[in-house]
Amino acid sequence: MERTLILESAKKVGEKVRLLGWVSVVRDHGKITFIDLRDRSGIIQCVGQNIEKVSPESAIEIEGTVKLRPEKLINLKLETGKVEIQIEKITVLSAAQELPFDIGQGDLNVGLPVLLDNRSLTLRNFKQQAIFKVQAVIIDAFREALLKKDFMEFQAPLIISSVPEGGAEVFKIKYYDHEAYLSQSPQLYKSLLVGIFERVFSVNQIFRAEPSVTTRHLAEATSLDAEFGFIDSWKDVLDMEEYVVRYIFSKVQEKCSGELAFFNATLPMLSERIPVIKLREAQKIIFKRTGRDVTKEKDLAPEDEKEICKWAKEEKGSELVFVSHFLTKRKPFYCYPDPEDPIYTFSVDLLGRGVEWSSGGQRLNDYKTILEHVKEWGLEPKDVELYLQSFKYGVPPLGGFALGAERMTMHILGLGNVREASLFPRDMERVDIRLSSQDKIE
Amino acid sequence: MERTLILESAKKVGEKVRLLGWVSVVRDHGKITFIDLRDRSGIIQCVGQNIEKVSPESAIEIEGTVKLRPEKLINLKLETGKVEIQIEKITVLSAAQELPFDIGQGDLNVGLPVLLDNRSLTLRNFKQQAIFKVQAVIIDAFREALLKKDFMEFQAPLIISSVPEGGAEVFKIKYYDHEAYLSQSPQLYKSLLVGIFERVFSVNQIFRAEPSVTTRHLAEATSLDAEFGFIDSWKDVLDMEEYVVRYIFSKVQEKCSGELAFFNATLPMLSERIPVIKLREAQKIIFKRTGRDVTKEKDLAPEDEKEICKWAKEEKGSELVFVSHFLTKRKPFYCYPDPEDPIYTFSVDLLGRGVEWSSGGQRLNDYKTILEHVKEWGLEPKDVELYLQSFKYGVPPLGGFALGAERMTMHILGLGNVREASLFPRDMERVDIRLSSQDKIE
Repeated sequence: MERTLILESAKKVGEKVRLLGWVSVVRDHGKITFIDLRDRSGIIQCVGQNIEKVSPESAIEIEGTVKLRPEKLINLKLETGKVEIQIEKITVLSAAQELPFDIGQGDLNVGLPVLLDNRSLTLRNFKQQAIFKVQAVIIDAFREALLKKDFMEFQAPLIISSVPEGGAEVFKIKYYDHEAYLSQSPQLYKSLLVGIFERVFSVNQIFRAEPSVTTRHLAEATSLDAEFGFIDSWKDVLDMEEYVVRYIFSKVQEKCSGELAFFNATLPMLSERIPVIKLREAQKIIFKRTGRDVTKEKDLAPEDEKEICKWAKEEKGSELVFVSHFLTKRKPFYCYPDPEDPIYTFSVDLLGRGVEWSSGGQRLNDYKTILEHVKEWGLEPKDVELYLQSFKYGVPPLGGFALGAERMTMHILGLGNVREASLFPRDMERVDIRLSSQDKIE
Repeated sequence: MERTLILESAKKVGEKVRLLGWVSVVRDHGKITFIDLRDRSGIIQCVGQNIEKVSPESAIEIEGTVKLRPEKLINLKLETGKVEIQIEKITVLSAAQELPFDIGQGDLNVGLPVLLDNRSLTLRNFKQQAIFKVQAVIIDAFREALLKKDFMEFQAPLIISSVPEGGAEVFKIKYYDHEAYLSQSPQLYKSLLVGIFERVFSVNQIFRAEPSVTTRHLAEATSLDAEFGFIDSWKDVLDMEEYVVRYIFSKVQEKCSGELAFFNATLPMLSERIPVIKLREAQKIIFKRTGRDVTKEKDLAPEDEKEICKWAKEEKGSELVFVSHFLTKRKPFYCYPDPEDPIYTFSVDLLGRGVEWSSGGQRLNDYKTILEHVKEWGLEPKDVELYLQSFKYGVPPLGGFALGAERMTMHILGLGNVREASLFPRDMERVDIRLSSQDKIE
């Protein structure tokens, strides 16, 4: 018999169906047994008499008939709550061992270490799965938004031969007889490709050897990168980024209402336009609001980011805010200094709900200026050879941005730790299992 | 003035337009200059009197009026060949230096080292760009095909803590105080995710420290991975893969006719179904056709792959062929032995135009059997801890496949070397620039 998905079976009252899925819950009432069966489409109650014992989380096959439930037993919380399956035959495809803790389908009452040490199991929880369904929608919407604007997708290379953006937080690879590194960003590749395809994007892993464990850093993360040329001004970059972020929000709203509800989450409130504020203005506002004088700081500290997000929400009605004009000397060599005040650059961070979601801006496109910056920044031209080559031959004014997929997921759903928004988070202490437990291997 | 894309400008006869793009060709006829201007949409002839000199490949802005060409000057080879732009104003956005060789827009007459040493420049050639447009369509079609079948996208982690699939060709990373590795395949992750999401796919980089330089291996490549559960038989995997490959072909045909024409390429001929043949049968056929007795070999050598593809084309009318039932002992621990003859597995390679495009098959899903195999294959259960954990708790029968994006691109377009199908190919000798030239750096 053909398989029927659980959600479809609810429409087949009176028909015989073959369901495949996992045992979410078993309720044994003597002769009568209730099984909540789960597949990728949903969950349904199945009921049988004198059936063989099945353990929770086993993968099973059920053949049975779809029946309407009596009026008073209808469960409106379930999409399939008006029916149940009268079990005629049950086959265990793969029996589950006894679970170390209850998975349930609501909140998983386990701490982060248990959540991650048992990742293969804890992801069986619907609420955990919802995180990654939202993430898949975010990533797909990012691509869709840019394809609509004529951007071309490319696959960013991840092994690099030099570290033009600074070396402390980079992972080293033994590359045949050479030393190579893991890419921290596809920045140079996406910029040089603007000289070729005009508009490009990539979805790629990035790697940072973060020297500490925080709630918002991962050693390996997914970056949503876009870059485009022939811009008239750095503000074109903001416009494109705002368009992309709004597009992503609209798709998450459209496709993930159930997932958002699991988390009591709402998408960030937006005003007509996302407000844009310069670093120095932001610092003045923070000083005024809190009395903390940060006006001479070279960057925003985490508490500053929180405060300026609070300001944007209260004063501008937006939970997202662009902060621009970071200090040239604190930024990489390729950033475009504001001609009106070149100690600041046309660089822009997008902050959302208290933290940085993205960074971007306009890039230098004049070969001679880039070469000067490379030297001034203490780099070897040889280390950025392919990049320099591109700009020798005519690259138009350009800019772009990179959004962190896990951070967006985290802050849309209101998760407490970015690790919850990574299927298999890597950090100082963990690559799947805790590294401390691997010390004897080597 | 708003920018007009070149292709659109052809529809605006009589109107004033502002074009942005690159100078493809300059033909200087004394007072009159012809410029072929190129942007992401196409190419158009612009003509001006007494205009300033512009060098080929410079990024420029042209304001002018769209005029119909006289009948006899119409160029039917160009989509914009019925019109030309009467230049009124020309602005150089970024001047190109003198080109080291002619880029043209047809064949680039340079060898592979020059092609790659000058990657930022050689990609300016339309034919080179076409390769990556086709690749982007292949990758997008792969995702689209699977989304239609309810697969969920995931981001595969690339840093791994152990090497369950064999260690010789793996890149080592210094990971904080530990040793870690670059993933050769997301196999274990996609399989364990079947226990959670049922159907998953990923587009991800894979890494192989290939110890030699061949025309078909890259140290870093893009893998198109799919895996799904609740299969009734290993043949379900073939069906799904065939569906995906046909879907990709149909999208390439639909969206890339111009790109295919550049290469005089046609998509592989397919019969009603892709033929499936067992390794041992394939070897007998090769023996019969060539007199080479390969019937006791443990695998297909490159020349065997070529021969069996020739057979499939001549005898079955198909340029693709599935070869199944490779030797259990030559395959990884997770492959599913055929119960009727367990020295062979339900493993399947897809060969196309003489080489392997993909490998796949059914995987073991019974915890005890997997654990036995792990030990028999000489692995430590600890090294596959998260994988084993998943199968403890009920994973249904499953299988999947992985397609190589660069190989598909290469063989659809008939390229001679897989490096041509990688934007930034990495191999023993090259990471962007040749490693030998970097020896002094360290």
